[in-house]
Amino acid sequence: MEKHAYPQLVRTFQRLSRFSHLSAIAGWDMATMMPPGGSRARGEALAELGVLQHQLLTDKKVGAWIEAAQQEDLSEDERANLREMRRAYDQAALLPESLVEAKSLAGNRCEHAWRSQRKNNDWQGFAPNLKEVVRLSREEAAIRAEAKGCSRYDALLDIYEPGMTGARLDVLFADLKRWLPSLLQEVVDKQASRPCLDPQGPFPTEKQRDLGLHAMGLLGFDFDRGRLDISAHPFCGGVPEDVRITTRYNEDDVLSALFGVIHETGHARYEQNLPPQWAGQPVGHARSMGVHESQSLFFEMQLGRSPAFLQHLLPAIRQRFGDQPAFTLDNFVAWSQRVKPGYIRVDADEVSYPAHVILRYEIERALIDGDIEVEDIPGLWDEKMQQYLGLSTAGNYQNGCMQDIHWTDGGFGYFPSYTLGAMYAAQLFSAARRALPDLDAHLNAGNFSPLFNWLRQNIWQHGSRFTTAELLTMATGEELNSDFFRQHLTARYL
Amino acid sequence: MEKHAYPQLVRTFQRLSRFSHLSAIAGWDMATMMPPGGSRARGEALAELGVLQHQLLTDKKVGAWIEAAQQEDLSEDERANLREMRRAYDQAALLPESLVEAKSLAGNRCEHAWRSQRKNNDWQGFAPNLKEVVRLSREEAAIRAEAKGCSRYDALLDIYEPGMTGARLDVLFADLKRWLPSLLQEVVDKQASRPCLDPQGPFPTEKQRDLGLHAMGLLGFDFDRGRLDISAHPFCGGVPEDVRITTRYNEDDVLSALFGVIHETGHARYEQNLPPQWAGQPVGHARSMGVHESQSLFFEMQLGRSPAFLQHLLPAIRQRFGDQPAFTLDNFVAWSQRVKPGYIRVDADEVSYPAHVILRYEIERALIDGDIEVEDIPGLWDEKMQQYLGLSTAGNYQNGCMQDIHWTDGGFGYFPSYTLGAMYAAQLFSAARRALPDLDAHLNAGNFSPLFNWLRQNIWQHGSRFTTAELLTMATGEELNSDFFRQHLTARYL
Repeated sequence: MEKHAYPQLVRTFQRLSRFSHLSAIAGWDMATMMPPGGSRARGEALAELGVLQHQLLTDKKVGAWIEAAQQEDLSEDERANLREMRRAYDQAALLPESLVEAKSLAGNRCEHAWRSQRKNNDWQGFAPNLKEVVRLSREEAAIRAEAKGCSRYDALLDIYEPGMTGARLDVLFADLKRWLPSLLQEVVDKQASRPCLDPQGPFPTEKQRDLGLHAMGLLGFDFDRGRLDISAHPFCGGVPEDVRITTRYNEDDVLSALFGVIHETGHARYEQNLPPQWAGQPVGHARSMGVHESQSLFFEMQLGRSPAFLQHLLPAIRQRFGDQPAFTLDNFVAWSQRVKPGYIRVDADEVSYPAHVILRYEIERALIDGDIEVEDIPGLWDEKMQQYLGLSTAGNYQNGCMQDIHWTDGGFGYFPSYTLGAMYAAQLFSAARRALPDLDAHLNAGNFSPLFNWLRQNIWQHGSRFTTAELLTMATGEELNSDFFRQHLTARYL
Repeated sequence: MEKHAYPQLVRTFQRLSRFSHLSAIAGWDMATMMPPGGSRARGEALAELGVLQHQLLTDKKVGAWIEAAQQEDLSEDERANLREMRRAYDQAALLPESLVEAKSLAGNRCEHAWRSQRKNNDWQGFAPNLKEVVRLSREEAAIRAEAKGCSRYDALLDIYEPGMTGARLDVLFADLKRWLPSLLQEVVDKQASRPCLDPQGPFPTEKQRDLGLHAMGLLGFDFDRGRLDISAHPFCGGVPEDVRITTRYNEDDVLSALFGVIHETGHARYEQNLPPQWAGQPVGHARSMGVHESQSLFFEMQLGRSPAFLQHLLPAIRQRFGDQPAFTLDNFVAWSQRVKPGYIRVDADEVSYPAHVILRYEIERALIDGDIEVEDIPGLWDEKMQQYLGLSTAGNYQNGCMQDIHWTDGGFGYFPSYTLGAMYAAQLFSAARRALPDLDAHLNAGNFSPLFNWLRQNIWQHGSRFTTAELLTMATGEELNSDFFRQHLTARYL
């Protein structure tokens, strides 16, 4: 059948993508450049564009075109594009506008108040706002669950990690919970017997920035299509043609910004290498949050903290911060691989990180499915922190259940992506090593491009053509298997 | 009559203003932050938003509301807002969408390529892009001219300086051409007999930037609602709530960036002090490009290069660049008021500046009216430069006809605003001096706020409530009169 509806969809999604471009740049500017007085006008401008995008996407014509295009003679890629278009349409069109607006208002209110409430450890002030966000997120989950025929939590999970389910996560995470606590304890014990030297600061911001740019260069970041800037919360934003990554600098600590930049460079290279022939179309987008995180963790953890990479980074570090005893290869590797269970997820090492995620997953799933209420969170948080990491957060809300921004604006279902990403990354690195017999020689020679080419070939260039499960199976020869993550941790830390 | 249509118009223009906000920030980013590879996607995104804005503004409903609102019971300010809405509607509704989009794309392409072509003196590369821009601008001018019943060039002039005509400019510029060349020669001769000392560089960019920020502070720039950055061609952009000014630095020259910043600060203070109660509405906009330029020249020329201001700036200069012999007050004033005909408009002193503008006015008017072609520009440029300023630009495109950004994206009709601005500024300063008997004492004491308050009272707070002619007459007691400009130049330089 002739193509009539499909080209209309392509044009609609191209328009939406161009508007998203402006909203991405204005959002980046808001976090990096905007003076405080511009905040209200910027918020109004972005909200106005958001309303317009929602109207364009949920227009009845779009639904009708999607139905009609189903019957049209499409290539395999076009059919994948149509599948992703339908996904975007269903996701946006399911919710009544009143709920979208109520969620946005409640989320804004909760997040805004949280910024000071967290500083003041004010759970009593925070809880009523969070209850309202939870109430609306449950409403959203119920609508999505009914349409998809799945559980409420699964319906939210699907927004960030299409195809993933709570049942699958339970199996994966049960496996992690079986071996990770003892492995963590072994690593901590082992490292206790071999202390390492701390680098001596201060580390001036300008030199740290310069080092970050150098690392980005080693990692193949395309500076013709991207930038590095500063924001309170690091992120990778912008558009594939112009990727904006950010970090924050602490002049007492050279590692935090450096590995933050390496992490965001992983996100950035994925974006910069998405299929250009599908630019602006849903099939050209990154596959999922979990796959995105797999790329940042591939760069930060698999490659970035390996001796092979660190030996090539060290000369640049010594050049900027002096030839300190802490900057021998052995010490610097040991220091980059230090494991120390702590309260804060974003500061966690890769061995203790999954415990933070599993704890949040278990709580947010029970919360959305209605098995617990907001009042139950602090108690559960403390119980699980004690169980998984041996730390108590009783009464310490700011470093406990109030530390993350995600729940404040209703981002339930996002947290599992972090640990899925860590598992995908380990499985991908193992597959790359099998596929590239000379990989270690290349890495030791500072030749990282075979590894990046393998990622381009197997992940980046595919955008959203395949499901996550298909993509992973094609790249690695098997489904997601947490053994690769365990093998990675065992090989590196024990 | 009840108000029905007018509130709809207010909502429509509010939406348009929010979209303009995003386009202003994305445009600023393009000039200051964007890496070159982002150019095409950004151009497409801005063009897409431009098309949307054009559709919203030219919707038949808007035309009908404007007609209906005419009969409604409006306040005087609302009526002025309606007048400006009609002006915006008429201006936009005339052009077919295809032309708007083609102009935006061709302008983006030409401007972006110009950035490197100018550096390479590449007229051959630049000319074909410019021809396309000229072709589309002529098309635009023809459509506007037919609707307004005026000449093609007048139709473009009216976009930037409503109410102004080529015939009026011919009279004003003929007057300038009568007395300015001899005045210029007299000044040059006079200054030749009294050479001044050059400040000794280099002047590091970071210190120049810091000095610029200091000058902005003296001049009342609100840093809570604005920034200073770097771009190839200095401008004042952003939105009233967040004004983005730019400059460029030459480490051998401390004056150029400093007075550039002072100039843009004049634009910025106008924007930052537009009537907040009319934010987002046409009546809340700055009156015209000429009035805008009058504010920047008021800051740069009338105030900025006066001994009264310079004595207060000098300590900051000495602090950053040493207590050089060139930084005595007498020498620094003489140096800031040096008159030297040169190639570059933006570096020109206020005595030779009008020659640069008249040259461009004569060329662009002939170009738009079809009397000359793009190929004729370099020859005419050389001829007029020799005639007005005694300088040849033969083969020197980068410092000749390729030096300005204006024509690259079709801004024909803009240049006269600069010299209209200089004349308005002289007339305004003279009126302020009459209105504020203690002005000189205040300025000598470093108290600039009475002068700024006078500008706020007489210019800034009015937005577009009055026509330019009304605004100038209310502020100064008479119509535009080039005598004030002559008197200013005579008093300062002879």
